[in-house]
Amino acid sequence: MSVTQVCEQARAASLVTRELHTSAKDRALLLLAEALADSADLLKAANSVDIAAARRDGVSATLIDRLTLTDQRLASICQATRAVAALPDPVGQVTGGSVRPNGLLIERVREPLGVVAVIYEARPNVTADVAALCLKSGNAVILRGSSVAAHTNAAIADVIAEALRQQDEVPEHAVQLVRDASREAMVELLTASEYVDLLVPRGGPGLLATVREHATVPVVIDGDGNCHVYVDASADLAAAASIVVNAKTSRPSVCNAAETLLVHAAVAGAFLPIVLEELVKAGVEVRGDERVREIWPDAEPARESDWATEYLDLILAVRVVDSLESAIAHIGKYGTRNSEAIVAQDIGVARRFARAVDSGSVFVNCSTRFSDGGEFGYGLEIGVSTQKLHARGPMGLEALTCVKNVAWGDGQIRP
Amino acid sequence: MSVTQVCEQARAASLVTRELHTSAKDRALLLLAEALADSADLLKAANSVDIAAARRDGVSATLIDRLTLTDQRLASICQATRAVAALPDPVGQVTGGSVRPNGLLIERVREPLGVVAVIYEARPNVTADVAALCLKSGNAVILRGSSVAAHTNAAIADVIAEALRQQDEVPEHAVQLVRDASREAMVELLTASEYVDLLVPRGGPGLLATVREHATVPVVIDGDGNCHVYVDASADLAAAASIVVNAKTSRPSVCNAAETLLVHAAVAGAFLPIVLEELVKAGVEVRGDERVREIWPDAEPARESDWATEYLDLILAVRVVDSLESAIAHIGKYGTRNSEAIVAQDIGVARRFARAVDSGSVFVNCSTRFSDGGEFGYGLEIGVSTQKLHARGPMGLEALTCVKNVAWGDGQIRP
Repeated sequence: MSVTQVCEQARAASLVTRELHTSAKDRALLLLAEALADSADLLKAANSVDIAAARRDGVSATLIDRLTLTDQRLASICQATRAVAALPDPVGQVTGGSVRPNGLLIERVREPLGVVAVIYEARPNVTADVAALCLKSGNAVILRGSSVAAHTNAAIADVIAEALRQQDEVPEHAVQLVRDASREAMVELLTASEYVDLLVPRGGPGLLATVREHATVPVVIDGDGNCHVYVDASADLAAAASIVVNAKTSRPSVCNAAETLLVHAAVAGAFLPIVLEELVKAGVEVRGDERVREIWPDAEPARESDWATEYLDLILAVRVVDSLESAIAHIGKYGTRNSEAIVAQDIGVARRFARAVDSGSVFVNCSTRFSDGGEFGYGLEIGVSTQKLHARGPMGLEALTCVKNVAWGDGQIRP
Repeated sequence: MSVTQVCEQARAASLVTRELHTSAKDRALLLLAEALADSADLLKAANSVDIAAARRDGVSATLIDRLTLTDQRLASICQATRAVAALPDPVGQVTGGSVRPNGLLIERVREPLGVVAVIYEARPNVTADVAALCLKSGNAVILRGSSVAAHTNAAIADVIAEALRQQDEVPEHAVQLVRDASREAMVELLTASEYVDLLVPRGGPGLLATVREHATVPVVIDGDGNCHVYVDASADLAAAASIVVNAKTSRPSVCNAAETLLVHAAVAGAFLPIVLEELVKAGVEVRGDERVREIWPDAEPARESDWATEYLDLILAVRVVDSLESAIAHIGKYGTRNSEAIVAQDIGVARRFARAVDSGSVFVNCSTRFSDGGEFGYGLEIGVSTQKLHARGPMGLEALTCVKNVAWGDGQIRP
């Protein structure tokens, strides 16, 4: 089936899903969770085909780990689908409005975007997660996974399609997988602007470059995270050390991991030896500026390019700054406007940092690693937006809706 | 001065404006209104230079009318600037949030976008209106007007700059005009993605095509309006006639004017002779389908292309439909998702139309001409968005903001 046919079916399905009542959508979600749980053997068998192929092709152990569907991971997929059913439905929420002097009642009402497309890489849980979020928010979804996970994704999509065929409220084509792994098929999806209301690319720099080059459909970018932790002169240093170590080491390969540590000069002498020793013990390579190296001579010298690098690895750039303003300026110059943390006991400093830093998420006295839809209470996330328009930071159900203006009158005309 | 220099100055100014208190912004707005009022003679003199050049170049009377700055128009510009000062400040509004099980307080807070650029055509009021909206919402703005209004826009920008120099809260470069009218300068602005957080093009298809071809900055499109009025079987026919005539004739050249009338078959025989006679009297050319022409033989035959045409002129396409569903399907097929109206007394029909029609604004028993920031109570408008992401329909102050996530903790780390 061509991408255009998939798009046409999605558009037709979206006209039905946009008007579905919450209870119908929730019934379907529970049905999907049950069907996925019942299909564990079938899904794991399909997954083992992908894993065998990946091993044969010399795919990295990290990627194979992401690709692997275990009983536990499958259980958490089903649990997440049920959790989405339990979330409030954003569709129909009135977000504002007023009665105008001429008597018009203007309401702003949330409604589904229509057709959402997601292009993603190896993790098979994304297939089910994205389907659940889109279904709950009344959208039809087009999924385009990585060829590495082709059999697993196809099996999940087949289970979902079969489950939807067994009920008559949510149309079967509300959830579709593009099975053509060619680049041409991807470009066809990226340019299907008649059909696709939102496309979210979830993947590395290569995918983002392709999307930026070809996309004519509306896109929300799930992108870079050169995240900073700033430790202020007023910081609780024990909390600061724990936050820095967590932000750097708990999962270095993700976009909410810290890449640069900024330390106020007044506490650098006391703080750096403690935190850097802990970091080195955890296997982190430290790259410091001159003032850091005076305190901790083992640090590699940081170059200008280090401040702008998202390592996604156990490497941390460290700089001593003379003031809050210098920290804010550094983040403004080198950051990617994703997530930044401050550790400070001075409320004025913390509030000013939270307001002045031009990033999607600011973490006061906690780790940047909380930049995540689940941690924000959104159930799951469709991605983490690094842009300002439409949605910023972790995107849950609300990011899959738009607002319609409805004006209720009794014959008003405009003079 | 190069566009890049203008952008750099705007970015620097935006770091100040993003943190300004409402009262400081309002003081500056009142100062601007006073300065513009005091400069009436100077502004009209500059305007007369543009008008003389436009006459010499054979510019149309309509365009010259739009370009002309009268005492009355200047007074309404000043009044609008004062009205923006009186509006609530969206910056700092908390739009949502929750306390998470680990004790994190997550707040979603509105903040300025940063640097807003607006490219617009002949109307000089846009220069002042856009400056006022951007200033109130804490943004720095880059204005790029039409060369036809070059002297007028420069004079308005000079008055604003001089007024800002006379106070020390809002930086002078918060409002800047690009004075280079070349295409190269426009493309430089469209690709200044390091600096510009939002670009709104306000103009015709030529401008939109240039923007779509070149822009790498985030854009919200102020675009097409192939608007429909659907008259249901349950309509109050007198109200329906008044609404249709208003939607078509009160200002046919704007994007919220009606272009197609859909009439339910059950009332077509009673309604069409009344409304079409009124429309013809008002100078409207009627293009009808076969069923319309059976009732009103004077109608020109409508072709397929008529349903998809935004005439922006005294022409109306008219079609008889058999049901609400047919009307919704027609609008879905041919519409541009801007503004649609329904005239119906049946509440079920009206509610279903309001929900099912996939357009930015729906008008129930009132004219499509109300699709306007002023009519919605936004004071002024930065434009009318015809897209779904970020902002939809008339855009006021809120559309010039984005939401930041701020997480307040006391040492939390992610397990």
